[in-house]
Amino acid sequence: QGTRDHPPAHAALRDRLLAAVVACFKRHGAAAIDTPVLELRETLTGKYGEDAKLIYELQDQGGELLALRYDLTVPFARYLAMNKITNMKRYHVAKVYRRDNPATTRGRYREFYQCDFDIAGQFDPMIPDAECLKIVHEILSDLQLGDFLIKVNDRRILNGVFAVCGIPESKFITTCSTVDKLDKMPWEEVRSEMVGEKGLSPEAADHIGEYVQLHGGLDLIERLLQDPKLSQNKLAKEGLGDMKLLFEYLTLFGITGKISFDLSLARGLDYYTGVIFEAVLLQQENDHVEEPVSVGSVAGGGRYDGLVGMFDPKGRKVPCVGVSIGIERIFSILEQRVKASGEKVRTTETQVLVATPHKHLLAVRLKLISELWDAGIKAEMLYKKDPKLLKQLQYCEDMGIPLAAIVGEQELTDGVVKLRDVATREEVRMPFYTRFQKCFQNLEITESSG
Amino acid sequence: QGTRDHPPAHAALRDRLLAAVVACFKRHGAAAIDTPVLELRETLTGKYGEDAKLIYELQDQGGELLALRYDLTVPFARYLAMNKITNMKRYHVAKVYRRDNPATTRGRYREFYQCDFDIAGQFDPMIPDAECLKIVHEILSDLQLGDFLIKVNDRRILNGVFAVCGIPESKFITTCSTVDKLDKMPWEEVRSEMVGEKGLSPEAADHIGEYVQLHGGLDLIERLLQDPKLSQNKLAKEGLGDMKLLFEYLTLFGITGKISFDLSLARGLDYYTGVIFEAVLLQQENDHVEEPVSVGSVAGGGRYDGLVGMFDPKGRKVPCVGVSIGIERIFSILEQRVKASGEKVRTTETQVLVATPHKHLLAVRLKLISELWDAGIKAEMLYKKDPKLLKQLQYCEDMGIPLAAIVGEQELTDGVVKLRDVATREEVRMPFYTRFQKCFQNLEITESSG
Repeated sequence: QGTRDHPPAHAALRDRLLAAVVACFKRHGAAAIDTPVLELRETLTGKYGEDAKLIYELQDQGGELLALRYDLTVPFARYLAMNKITNMKRYHVAKVYRRDNPATTRGRYREFYQCDFDIAGQFDPMIPDAECLKIVHEILSDLQLGDFLIKVNDRRILNGVFAVCGIPESKFITTCSTVDKLDKMPWEEVRSEMVGEKGLSPEAADHIGEYVQLHGGLDLIERLLQDPKLSQNKLAKEGLGDMKLLFEYLTLFGITGKISFDLSLARGLDYYTGVIFEAVLLQQENDHVEEPVSVGSVAGGGRYDGLVGMFDPKGRKVPCVGVSIGIERIFSILEQRVKASGEKVRTTETQVLVATPHKHLLAVRLKLISELWDAGIKAEMLYKKDPKLLKQLQYCEDMGIPLAAIVGEQELTDGVVKLRDVATREEVRMPFYTRFQKCFQNLEITESSG
Repeated sequence: QGTRDHPPAHAALRDRLLAAVVACFKRHGAAAIDTPVLELRETLTGKYGEDAKLIYELQDQGGELLALRYDLTVPFARYLAMNKITNMKRYHVAKVYRRDNPATTRGRYREFYQCDFDIAGQFDPMIPDAECLKIVHEILSDLQLGDFLIKVNDRRILNGVFAVCGIPESKFITTCSTVDKLDKMPWEEVRSEMVGEKGLSPEAADHIGEYVQLHGGLDLIERLLQDPKLSQNKLAKEGLGDMKLLFEYLTLFGITGKISFDLSLARGLDYYTGVIFEAVLLQQENDHVEEPVSVGSVAGGGRYDGLVGMFDPKGRKVPCVGVSIGIERIFSILEQRVKASGEKVRTTETQVLVATPHKHLLAVRLKLISELWDAGIKAEMLYKKDPKLLKQLQYCEDMGIPLAAIVGEQELTDGVVKLRDVATREEVRMPFYTRFQKCFQNLEITESSG
């Protein structure tokens, strides 16, 4: 439950999707790494806050205490620290595991793919951060998912806001997780959670509300840099300065049209320390799908400068920024779209079916298909001694195989193969090359013994 | 322990290797499926005989009792039965898990890849079986691993041999597993295990010895078909008849030169019912590697007509034949070879580094690289505001990036990019297209604010 087999049509669509994402990661010069599905339990403890209860643990059968990885970020940080790597651009596409309540219609499973791209290293500010946003932009554009928006914020700006609103530092993280709900609840509800559950004063909550409902672009950044209170806060000033720089780089990339500086964006995870971002699709093409799917965010990420240090015995920090593409959610959208369009996803890549029109020609088919395979051509034949031609052509139609290479007595005599376009039924006779023809001269002997 | 991270050089080599294997599987018209890493414990019990103790079990945290998959064959059989599929050609490349004593020098790990190709369905005899052998032949040839031999046998022939040697049917499986050791021990030791541990009579053991030390080709098959005792055994006769047919098909495929009908081949697993095979490398190119690696078999498989029925409530059988490529062993050979040759495995595919020869040109680099990415070119730049040209060229050499696109003041004025071949140091000046040039005219403004 919450895991699933991927039948060929799934797997083929998923392969195409993953290929597009990986192509983008490679275009940006990332190297692949692979880490084990099994991690030591202690590596995962204390990294996911409340979500720790969702970690799958392995039975103690002697040896180390193990768990299934929960994401790809913590293993990456563990990998960097273990190998004392201070500088790396990597991608990782792999499955992660969560003992969650699966919401399969929204593309949430207990076993699912993550596609992560991360840049580790001490660099000049906002250059790698800008590249992560460019990557999100490229992937969502490439996949033609419709209109999208990338919300950007900075944990330092949020913390600055909390500080100038008089929130004690001990309540920053819990206030942050309440702000994070603004994409699912109206402000009134978020406000009452702040005052009720989190114990903020109504005035502080209202004050926060004035800030976190703001969103815009460079103009908003400039305005907040002039804000009499916020401009006095060191963290906020730093964050806003970097945000301005980020927008300049994004302008050079030509992608600010899809970027929104949004103070309500908080992101759930504790480990973010700077820029955070999240991409949402702006509308489903509802006229094309039967049931509209609410998919939420399709990509997210941010800067986490402290995580690697948690795994280093001396606490040495390696600044990191990364992005995770929500491939499962994107997959459910594409799947719905394919279903609605009635398009048939080809599950194989076979180019030609080797066929014979009458009996006693199995040897001819075996010989011909072997030549085709050796020439790198994707070819199939039916595993029957004497299949009917109709059955063979039917198989082509069922599997979407575009061509049939037909050889009968007449073709053997003439030294040709009849190449048939399955869709149009057009046929051309093509001579097959000498070596092949020569082989057929000796076929009688082999055939008679078959 | 026994699991490992795959750093970029590993991951890149592995990707190439897997790509070659998958290309072959696709060439033969297979569709991909994907099954969960987690299976119900009950699915795996009773399938692996003594090896069941090597299964990783998950802790009971409420919900179903789960285990990590041990191979890809049992999940495939479970998948076919669950979905009532009677006909399918699929490949699956994924990791499996075994609580084994890792022998990492021989390429044995607790987490490792399997690459399986299987044909399920009721077909005319030996046609799919021959294709599996063709696939092994193609892959081992493509990978240029040196000389190899594919040993072939049939469980029915082995059982026939046991029967005519007077072994009771109850001892077939245990005798089979002793015969299986002939590739690691001399006959004398195998014989004494038969007589000592397995309780066979010395005469019966000697009699078996006469058969299982035989190997050859069509001639041997013909001889055994004439064998006065064996030809009287129904199972052996069936097996030998099919073996003859198989050799005819393999002759048409032109691969009998690397095939040996070898009566000592037994294969460990219980579920095989017909043809079995195993590929071994005949020699390591020892002059090229520092330490010769003993790698054992690099591919194996066979026919298992009963496994799917074990998962079907009504016991309906789906005949299957499949092959598994020993990718980890092949990987250790390739890795040793790369290490010995001193060849540097590129971990990224970056085609060009965007570089600037002096200060205040970050905006130019960001603009140019963005254009390149959008044009689908794999490009990188250093994440520094003002990197030295030497550092940038050094990065190209370290990472094996073949080209540097250099833009300085002079190039900006002339509207060109200087394209430098990193290895030869040759440079050509190339005009960049109008849209790009236009962008640069406005760069002063942006640059000054950066």
